[in-house]
Amino acid sequence: MGNEFLNIKNPEDVKEIIKNISINKRIENVNIEDSLNRVLAEDLKATINLPPFNKANMDGYAVIAEDTFMTSEDDPVSLKLVEVVGAGDVPKIVVKKGVCSEVGTGAPVPEGADAVVMVEFTDEKDGKILISESVTIGQNIAIEGSDIKIGKQLLSKGTTINPEKIGVLSAMGLKSIPVFQKPKIAIISTGNELIRHNEELTYGKVYDINSQTIASAVKSCGCVPVHTEIVKDNYNDLKNKINEFKDLDLIITSGGTSAGRGDVLRQVLDDIGEVLIHGIAVKPGKPTIVGRFKQDDGYKYVVGLPGNPVAASMVFQLFFAPFLREMASLNKISLFNESKIIELELSRRYRPARGRKHYLLVKVEGKKVVPILKDSGAITALADADGFIEIPKNAEILEKGSKVKVHPLENW
Amino acid sequence: MGNEFLNIKNPEDVKEIIKNISINKRIENVNIEDSLNRVLAEDLKATINLPPFNKANMDGYAVIAEDTFMTSEDDPVSLKLVEVVGAGDVPKIVVKKGVCSEVGTGAPVPEGADAVVMVEFTDEKDGKILISESVTIGQNIAIEGSDIKIGKQLLSKGTTINPEKIGVLSAMGLKSIPVFQKPKIAIISTGNELIRHNEELTYGKVYDINSQTIASAVKSCGCVPVHTEIVKDNYNDLKNKINEFKDLDLIITSGGTSAGRGDVLRQVLDDIGEVLIHGIAVKPGKPTIVGRFKQDDGYKYVVGLPGNPVAASMVFQLFFAPFLREMASLNKISLFNESKIIELELSRRYRPARGRKHYLLVKVEGKKVVPILKDSGAITALADADGFIEIPKNAEILEKGSKVKVHPLENW
Repeated sequence: MGNEFLNIKNPEDVKEIIKNISINKRIENVNIEDSLNRVLAEDLKATINLPPFNKANMDGYAVIAEDTFMTSEDDPVSLKLVEVVGAGDVPKIVVKKGVCSEVGTGAPVPEGADAVVMVEFTDEKDGKILISESVTIGQNIAIEGSDIKIGKQLLSKGTTINPEKIGVLSAMGLKSIPVFQKPKIAIISTGNELIRHNEELTYGKVYDINSQTIASAVKSCGCVPVHTEIVKDNYNDLKNKINEFKDLDLIITSGGTSAGRGDVLRQVLDDIGEVLIHGIAVKPGKPTIVGRFKQDDGYKYVVGLPGNPVAASMVFQLFFAPFLREMASLNKISLFNESKIIELELSRRYRPARGRKHYLLVKVEGKKVVPILKDSGAITALADADGFIEIPKNAEILEKGSKVKVHPLENW
Repeated sequence: MGNEFLNIKNPEDVKEIIKNISINKRIENVNIEDSLNRVLAEDLKATINLPPFNKANMDGYAVIAEDTFMTSEDDPVSLKLVEVVGAGDVPKIVVKKGVCSEVGTGAPVPEGADAVVMVEFTDEKDGKILISESVTIGQNIAIEGSDIKIGKQLLSKGTTINPEKIGVLSAMGLKSIPVFQKPKIAIISTGNELIRHNEELTYGKVYDINSQTIASAVKSCGCVPVHTEIVKDNYNDLKNKINEFKDLDLIITSGGTSAGRGDVLRQVLDDIGEVLIHGIAVKPGKPTIVGRFKQDDGYKYVVGLPGNPVAASMVFQLFFAPFLREMASLNKISLFNESKIIELELSRRYRPARGRKHYLLVKVEGKKVVPILKDSGAITALADADGFIEIPKNAEILEKGSKVKVHPLENW
């Protein structure tokens, strides 16, 4: 029974190894309306001026500013109305001294006019427009290209598309944009005891958890789980399945990673390639494997998560989710995200595991942090948790009331 | 020209009015694999025990604990191996005193056995198993139902499904769950100047921005934009369109909300129902309308956002996004979200608008907050912004270096 972990690494070394995995990024075009949360794959330049013409910013009258310079409420200037231009209309008459055109907000300012008087400062009398406030040149007009000029940088490569960015893309009249393809991930649960929800639960079997949890976590990272399968804990089945999925961007398995009789992933990886990590010095999550094998276009990586669903989720989120977000080009570090870690008081004394870095699931109740003390195999522990705290290797007892930093689960 | 706002409200009153709108929630079933970020519409109870049988937590040997009480490394107890039980197998032989069965992690513990000795503390010799460490009753066994018992509360109504919750649902073997239907929202841009991206940009026209921005913001709130349309700024067209969409959960328009000649939403709402809000005392976003009309199942609400895209986005996010998330049952206030507001120093002196509460778009550069000083109609301002700061009505000048609270745009 080969019951040793061959290549146990510290969490820091694991992060370093994962960080150095090279990523092949591919580009595809998506329609603007489907581009929310996608990542721009190229710099985009403005394809038109914005606004595309000199635009009235207010309802009012387009005038030559000079005509209004001497006006006042007591002695308003009187201008002849020559045209009414609504938003969407094309003005036909040039505004000259002594005349004005009515313009709606968003309407083009007629040729000749260099300012707009707001309707609030005007009156109509005997077919003439009385202007009671003077305006300066350019007032209440958005000049063509003042927002952005054709050819200028609009959005840069790597930008994540939010509703506001969709605004500028729509303003350009763009139909589609180049974005990074979502990485395609295969997810395999290994274990002879695992069944799917459409199968009958007989004695000794359990419903598979990991393929569904990891698939949805993969989606949250901006990737696509293209296969979620269960295979037997059997050398040939697992090897064939890995071979079947070798063209995908990453293969994630769970189960079959510790050091017992049925743990075959390490053997498969040894034969088809190499094992980089076998064992991480953390709790939970020690039995984790990372390996790779050669493909025409470089190495293909296989991540083997523990079979224990709590350990599988925690190891995925702590070590691999950042890598998947990086693959999906979503790994932007922001001040706002950093600030999501909150410091609160522990509700009770807690004695951590020693010898391994320890990630403890916690609930936040009021302003207190309550450790979740269930068995590490308890899937309900994970469902109850709001976040986790990191406890260093060989830490002393954490006293009741001591301050701990809670990392939110929603944003591992 | 009816150029007054008839019913200007303070932001606080607007929030109060919106909060009191009653919401009809409907339920639908979705498959577990499609349930990520959906909201549970009913309490769910455990449908099976977890684990469903007494399960070995370690690779090792199932024994009667008493057999191991006097063992030591020097003088190991020797037990006869009667069976090998892997994960997924059904044990056939009862463990009695003096014998043991090999069990893999996840395998059922055979009848009779009450503990599992880890393989690390055993050896095999002449077909016998030598046990060198004593175990207590229950050690390394997860008892049937110890994680959760059949009939106990599994997840409560209102829970947002994350990957971890998908774990417990999968563990139950559930195929689908009842969730709240996503509210269906109609989005209408009004304006004679507006064209779609597949139309040619001629003089006086602009590409529609708001229907796309608001549609994607609606998606971010967990709702579905079922129609996004452009209508002319024309009483009958708008009235007909609102009537066409009267069975949806909410109608959001933009444009046609201020007090000019072409601003028809108020007139339509006056005729078919009533206007609750016409004007909000904020900058940007003053020309905002909320109205309602009677339907068989209660009132149907219409939100009229300003036509200016920056104002439309800000008003939507500040006043209506929380309501849409509430409609979608996603409006959970968490300590983590509150903590996302960060306090930083202003990069320069800023003189706020007076008389209205002011929301100023800002960029975060390093640890400095840089106000975005573009024209309020500049859509690129919104695309550049990282967040906004709230400035009270009648605030004094904000000095360079003064501390301001930045609300992130990603999470208005």
